[in-house]
Amino acid sequence: MSRKVVITGVPGVGKSTVIDGALERLKELGREYWPISFGTAMFELASERGLVSDRDEMRRLDQDVQKELQSGAARAIAQISDDVIVDTHCTVKTPGGFLPGLPIWVLEELKPDVFVLVETDPDQILGRRILDESRIRDLEGYGEIRTHQEFNRFIAASYAMVSGCTVKIINNPDFLLEKALADLVEVLR
Amino acid sequence: MSRKVVITGVPGVGKSTVIDGALERLKELGREYWPISFGTAMFELASERGLVSDRDEMRRLDQDVQKELQSGAARAIAQISDDVIVDTHCTVKTPGGFLPGLPIWVLEELKPDVFVLVETDPDQILGRRILDESRIRDLEGYGEIRTHQEFNRFIAASYAMVSGCTVKIINNPDFLLEKALADLVEVLR
Amino acid sequence: MSRKVVITGVPGVGKSTVIDGALERLKELGREYWPISFGTAMFELASERGLVSDRDEMRRLDQDVQKELQSGAARAIAQISDDVIVDTHCTVKTPGGFLPGLPIWVLEELKPDVFVLVETDPDQILGRRILDESRIRDLEGYGEIRTHQEFNRFIAASYAMVSGCTVKIINNPDFLLEKALADLVEVLR
Repeated sequence: MSRKVVITGVPGVGKSTVIDGALERLKELGREYWPISFGTAMFELASERGLVSDRDEMRRLDQDVQKELQSGAARAIAQISDDVIVDTHCTVKTPGGFLPGLPIWVLEELKPDVFVLVETDPDQILGRRILDESRIRDLEGYGEIRTHQEFNRFIAASYAMVSGCTVKIINNPDFLLEKALADLVEVLR
Repeated sequence: MSRKVVITGVPGVGKSTVIDGALERLKELGREYWPISFGTAMFELASERGLVSDRDEMRRLDQDVQKELQSGAARAIAQISDDVIVDTHCTVKTPGGFLPGLPIWVLEELKPDVFVLVETDPDQILGRRILDESRIRDLEGYGEIRTHQEFNRFIAASYAMVSGCTVKIINNPDFLLEKALADLVEVLR
Repeated sequence: MSRKVVITGVPGVGKSTVIDGALERLKELGREYWPISFGTAMFELASERGLVSDRDEMRRLDQDVQKELQSGAARAIAQISDDVIVDTHCTVKTPGGFLPGLPIWVLEELKPDVFVLVETDPDQILGRRILDESRIRDLEGYGEIRTHQEFNRFIAASYAMVSGCTVKIINNPDFLLEKALADLVEVLR
């Protein structure tokens, strides 16, 4: 059976860099994973069904439709016969609070084997966000980023309880990307 | 569809003050929520069914009957067509440990949209408990109150995973009630 | 109905000492619990079914078979008419991350009443592991043990949400075993 790895991290933690680097190293080892963005999978499903014509419209969809798209995307990913690494949000910080990225209806379809949390010191995340000029992000402070990362651990534990997946914390601090990549490769190989 | 907000906080955190103040401000803005006490809803259901004649008898009910009353109260609240704010306990501290206030059978009926945790520094909670002469409470120390608040965050994350609700942390520190009210109004408006 | 208590703690926390001591004191009080090791219950079930001949083979079983053995062992324990105390792992630390000891399919069969976490300061656990010559264990540092204990609290909260059990934290520090035993006896009596 194919292996399903979910990988998450707060904005600015360097998730994409870690994923890309690890997949490259794995390829050199003859081990392949199919990288999937959960958001893109949902958007493609919504487009196919004629519900949206661009990504901005996703947010305006009815809550029940969004739930159905989440389940549908999870179901589609679960049917892929290759090993996959699914890039998504553990929780999304919204004005109404932390929104779970993998509610039970997603977990029951996706059935992940491993759930990865990419983390680092909130100060470093703050620094990376400030340097990243490509995206405009709300400026959060140290305490808020820490709380978000902590809450992600709390909810990741409940994801494991429901799906039976393991939860792996990968630390991605400044100057130690190679260590983070080696840790992730170790989990994925 | 009506909006269902659940609001919780450890004893002494000032939950009632925050709820009352926010609902008053919302009314001024022309926005109404129906405030519901989950404990009262359970008691009323038990009275209707002739199971109890006063609230003290609730505790002595058989565990399966209590579960059935929890589900029943949650179902009744879910059917209300107005927006509701449900005041309950995230967990109750009992001699046997932390008891979940919203086990899965409650969440599956209630389907909350937002789960609010009202929090503040344990020292301030301790101070408020000592000053509150209207209730006799077991005296807990700083560490115990901190652990209770932390555990409430942990379990709130699992409530979100099952129901898909957001989890909003509202800080209610001394001298800053207006800020707490503004934060809650922002979530509820 | 019989009472089902689950007791967990990271390796080296002194779980067995606490269980044995508490059960002895309870016996003196005329209160009996049947101690069960969840791992042994799973192994016995696997042996009965001719799946394994020794415990080492358990690990090599197919994942679906392991799940079925977990459910089966939980179901068998749930049918015991005596009060039981089930010794198991809250999470197991594996190379792929923290693996839940009581995923939802175990909780739904077992329906525990109380979930106990035996904890102490990571430094003391480190010290006990070094002194315990009977077992060879991977040497973890303070931070790793702390993270493991914290993660166990997070997931215990989700166990409570699903099963409705209480979560009791029993502190088992150096020189204070009698206090830990008294606390556990208080919960079990």
